[in-house]
Amino acid sequence: MARAHWGCCPWLVLICACAWGHPKPVDLGGQDVRNCSTNPPYLPVTVVNTTMSLTALRQQMQTQNLSAYIIPETDAHMNEYIGQHDERRAWITGFTGSAGTAVVTMKKAAVWTDSRYWTQAERQMDCNWELHKEVGTTPIVTWLLTEIPAGGRVGFDPFLLSIDTWESYDLALQGSNRQLVSITTNLVDLVWGSERPPVPSQPIYALQEAFTGSTWQEKVSGIRSQMQKHQKAPTAVLLSALEETAWLFNLRASDIPYNPFFYSYTLLTDSSIRLFANKSRFSSETLSYLNSSCTGPMCVQIEDYSQVRDSIQAYALGDVRIWIGTSYTMYGIYEVIPKEKLVTDTYSPVMMTKAVKNSKEQALLKASHVRDAVAVIRYLVWLEKNVPKGTVDEFSGAELVDKFRGEEQFSSGPSFETISASGLNAALAHYSPTKEMNRKLSSDEMYLLDSGGQYWDGTTDVTRTVHWGTPSAFQKEAYTRVLIGNIDLSRLIFPAATSGRMVEAFARRALWDAGLNYGHGTGHGIGNFLCVHEWPVGFQSNNIAMAKGMFTSIEPGYYKDGEFGIRLEDVALVVEAKTKYPGSYLTFEVVSFVPYDRNLIDVSLLSPEHLQYLNRYYQTIREKVGPELQRRQLLEEFEWLQQHTEPLAARAPDTASWASVLVVSTLAILGWSA
Amino acid sequence: MARAHWGCCPWLVLICACAWGHPKPVDLGGQDVRNCSTNPPYLPVTVVNTTMSLTALRQQMQTQNLSAYIIPETDAHMNEYIGQHDERRAWITGFTGSAGTAVVTMKKAAVWTDSRYWTQAERQMDCNWELHKEVGTTPIVTWLLTEIPAGGRVGFDPFLLSIDTWESYDLALQGSNRQLVSITTNLVDLVWGSERPPVPSQPIYALQEAFTGSTWQEKVSGIRSQMQKHQKAPTAVLLSALEETAWLFNLRASDIPYNPFFYSYTLLTDSSIRLFANKSRFSSETLSYLNSSCTGPMCVQIEDYSQVRDSIQAYALGDVRIWIGTSYTMYGIYEVIPKEKLVTDTYSPVMMTKAVKNSKEQALLKASHVRDAVAVIRYLVWLEKNVPKGTVDEFSGAELVDKFRGEEQFSSGPSFETISASGLNAALAHYSPTKEMNRKLSSDEMYLLDSGGQYWDGTTDVTRTVHWGTPSAFQKEAYTRVLIGNIDLSRLIFPAATSGRMVEAFARRALWDAGLNYGHGTGHGIGNFLCVHEWPVGFQSNNIAMAKGMFTSIEPGYYKDGEFGIRLEDVALVVEAKTKYPGSYLTFEVVSFVPYDRNLIDVSLLSPEHLQYLNRYYQTIREKVGPELQRRQLLEEFEWLQQHTEPLAARAPDTASWASVLVVSTLAILGWSA
Repeated sequence: MARAHWGCCPWLVLICACAWGHPKPVDLGGQDVRNCSTNPPYLPVTVVNTTMSLTALRQQMQTQNLSAYIIPETDAHMNEYIGQHDERRAWITGFTGSAGTAVVTMKKAAVWTDSRYWTQAERQMDCNWELHKEVGTTPIVTWLLTEIPAGGRVGFDPFLLSIDTWESYDLALQGSNRQLVSITTNLVDLVWGSERPPVPSQPIYALQEAFTGSTWQEKVSGIRSQMQKHQKAPTAVLLSALEETAWLFNLRASDIPYNPFFYSYTLLTDSSIRLFANKSRFSSETLSYLNSSCTGPMCVQIEDYSQVRDSIQAYALGDVRIWIGTSYTMYGIYEVIPKEKLVTDTYSPVMMTKAVKNSKEQALLKASHVRDAVAVIRYLVWLEKNVPKGTVDEFSGAELVDKFRGEEQFSSGPSFETISASGLNAALAHYSPTKEMNRKLSSDEMYLLDSGGQYWDGTTDVTRTVHWGTPSAFQKEAYTRVLIGNIDLSRLIFPAATSGRMVEAFARRALWDAGLNYGHGTGHGIGNFLCVHEWPVGFQSNNIAMAKGMFTSIEPGYYKDGEFGIRLEDVALVVEAKTKYPGSYLTFEVVSFVPYDRNLIDVSLLSPEHLQYLNRYYQTIREKVGPELQRRQLLEEFEWLQQHTEPLAARAPDTASWASVLVVSTLAILGWSA
Repeated sequence: MARAHWGCCPWLVLICACAWGHPKPVDLGGQDVRNCSTNPPYLPVTVVNTTMSLTALRQQMQTQNLSAYIIPETDAHMNEYIGQHDERRAWITGFTGSAGTAVVTMKKAAVWTDSRYWTQAERQMDCNWELHKEVGTTPIVTWLLTEIPAGGRVGFDPFLLSIDTWESYDLALQGSNRQLVSITTNLVDLVWGSERPPVPSQPIYALQEAFTGSTWQEKVSGIRSQMQKHQKAPTAVLLSALEETAWLFNLRASDIPYNPFFYSYTLLTDSSIRLFANKSRFSSETLSYLNSSCTGPMCVQIEDYSQVRDSIQAYALGDVRIWIGTSYTMYGIYEVIPKEKLVTDTYSPVMMTKAVKNSKEQALLKASHVRDAVAVIRYLVWLEKNVPKGTVDEFSGAELVDKFRGEEQFSSGPSFETISASGLNAALAHYSPTKEMNRKLSSDEMYLLDSGGQYWDGTTDVTRTVHWGTPSAFQKEAYTRVLIGNIDLSRLIFPAATSGRMVEAFARRALWDAGLNYGHGTGHGIGNFLCVHEWPVGFQSNNIAMAKGMFTSIEPGYYKDGEFGIRLEDVALVVEAKTKYPGSYLTFEVVSFVPYDRNLIDVSLLSPEHLQYLNRYYQTIREKVGPELQRRQLLEEFEWLQQHTEPLAARAPDTASWASVLVVSTLAILGWSA
């Protein structure tokens, strides 16, 4: 799990930075937030003054004859993590949360965001901005209809609206006598001017063959073969997501945080390969690796990134059909292709192909998880010794686990911002500590660590929750119910091609049973040195059906506001299941190898099947990670691993239902069967 | 469950009606089917000669300058069961299966249908018709693109294509230089002429107040209140589904099989109520009940059914917004409303409101299920005595259970064609026997009965599978796994507003675990003397979220081709669940009250929770049905009920996992806990 699902909101847990003097801040749970209802308004120091930039933006709007301008929180590739030069909404509003849309009219300015960010927005925005505590296009359009006159023009950057988002605005505005106007020059960028951070320019490099599942030539041939087999015979595939181009050519860079990608598009036609990027960033070796000096069907022509729209438009003049995945294509590309020349699927053939890992990719991803487990275990061992000393805080802890990962072979940094959360902070979805604001780890509190690494061979993501003291009965119950959810889904046997959505409730049942639940998804795909949240694999309604060779996280949780948070996340490979009667069935093989915290498991809640599963998993951890720890002379960690993977034995049941098992079973033993 | 989900295909089990002489039939599992590859072709007696009607249809197509004409299997209201005068596809092709689309070009004619109907189609269609073993619009359009020239016009009746179906044809044909042409006069009807069965004309009657949850005036006010609260302020709601108008006005008739509906549309505006139907079918009392002689906002103006399209078109000229449910609105209505005057949801507010039963409706539906259980129990008792005599067959059995239901108070006939299937016939989805072709019931075979009744207070649907002799171990295992699925879903506790799709796998898990499954849905909504398959409640992806007050069937099954079939179907009410920790949780309360067959339950596969649930259910059956049987002096049935609802006790486990429970539990008793 990471930021884009929930975003990161450390401000929610700040100890009140008291405000001296008047006017008083609004009392919002001890937070120092703006108060626009006093005169003058109260503005905390964290607020950004946006008056000048708003005036400049409205001037730009006037030159385009716009009544309103939409500023979404995204970039041209729908990246989960976006570069600083794409943080337009944050720059114009002052509000830096990772989700939320701004709209500016000639008189008003407003931000729509979800509950994670309400306090943050009130701390960062000045009184030029209304805060709307809603999400989706409907409330925005409702507001627009009251704020702008009939005949009004609503401008937007077509590279910042996905096809779906554009359609929902278009549909909502239909018949309203307000018009959506696509403007390819971003108006915020014009105002931002020279202050706007530059686009990255580090080298784009090719992965070593040892870390790739297939050569780029094999991948190109595979996609072309899918084009040929496609009923509508597309002549080209257009790739808009950065991970698509990175995967296709086995190229990597570091243009955006946490994901090893570079700004690019690819137009793969039946007779050419056109890669749109900044050519100056390719070394001569990489250009040669790409066969970029020739012009045949297996030569990669590098064209300038900024030319993509014009080039697609020109290509679309021919007798062509361009295959796109609508989920990752922006309206700015879509609008230049005549509808009858579009072949659309939700996900491009590259996204679909990438989702199923071949045997080499599976082996690579598994290997990275073994080393990743070593780093996390080193950290857990270190915590066990140091937390009681009272010297560890969330931030220094996060730094240490990142450091341990960095010492692993093939490491290329964290795969997302480490969530290191103690006590009540762990109940905040995707909380991350800062150097300035963090909480001390303590033997009296639970601690949640959700972290992952990028390695040349794979991307990892694992969450463990621990308690070094005496957890409460409720904490143990909640932890055990989360664990049961993880186990129930991990050991589920289900027919091939079942969608994740159909089975994710198995991860929730044990919680539901007691009236508990969690508010986030149950898992997501993961890549080979690619995205930590790799679509379209996962358990949500827009994920594709499960197939052998896919990897997904399994991560139920439970969060008690103001008290604690629990999440147990593993990455699992989808494998064939052996069933009593023959059939095409799948199950999961967990490839995360970090023991759960025995201190938090209430064994009496576990069924014999759960115990059997858990002990088999412990055995696997010993077999996979033990030798690696020994090889590395990490003997203390090896000892810790042995202790924490001792087989669990059933304890006397303490619930009514298990009591009845006893009675029934004992009667059966005594021959009292019916 | 009933026919429309799977359709009914008794032909699959016919003993071969041997063909004397040449040419020989194709050998299709002993079936007598056509063989178009011989010269002359072999045609069984069941085939219909369609040469003349096809010629006449092509003449009609020529006058419209059409290259192709689409003939779907539906009516103008997307009814599950359609009237004889709407059986256009059956009439023009000879093929009477309940699913499948025909397309006629100037040279060819073809039918697309699913595997249930392939044999039936080969038995009924002459060699004018190609059979395509595919479904959906894509294969039809692919075929059209090869069969008709560029510039070709593809005609269709806009009242026989839903908006979605029209959109999928439109999308698939985009850019192909073939045009979809809406022709409001149905060309098959022109050819059918005076042979076409008449439209029903029986009286349309009002339900007694005792059988309605609210008056029509209350319902109208409720829908108008939703219009007022709606963000887009619709001025009218258009109702296209027959059940919508029947529900809104508490009116019933019998225009189509099994569903008590009449051909109608309703345009409910903010100031008027316009009911489109055949006015001559209303008695003066019913007209008076509807306030049809006045013109105010609470007066129902009856307008002629045939005027609906013109009237909607005229209404849409004004400053209006018409709210429709796209799922039940045909393209013929949709195309006359300007897009900007449409307010669309998947389901109309009537469909959404009807889905949640108020307390009176809940009580009515439950009461009908008690009487329905009496009828089914009478039949099961009778079978237990008569099957061993060898005098019962599937058809006479079906007649008898229909007769028993008919003797119950408020009975209004079966709610679908009774599925009475013995032995291997039960593996055929929705098999129904005929007088001519049926199988004898035997103590050596399993027997599946899926049947339901229409009563003035409610609609019922229940399935039980029984065996009067010695079932095989596999039959018992499969039955018990189906039962576990039924129990696991019925006793599930889940958060309010969970979609059925998210939880239906609980009904499958016990089967999946052994590599078994079933190929149909897990359940559907049900009405108060309305549809036996009442949308939008259920467990499929296009069903709406579960809410307190909804009723749904729960019906896992297992089918072993050529051997036997099992289905256990109950109707359940969605109720609030009490959980250990407070929260808004739901669960199911089963309202079908027929015992499962103890002879088929392998108790050793059941957990203590399953047994506890089952015994509680048996107790409920005794409490609900017992007094009714006694009151009616059905003492033999009462005795049978007591026997079949004796509490089940656990037997000695015979599986490895339960053995481990025993060991663990016994050790625990002896103080050996870990």
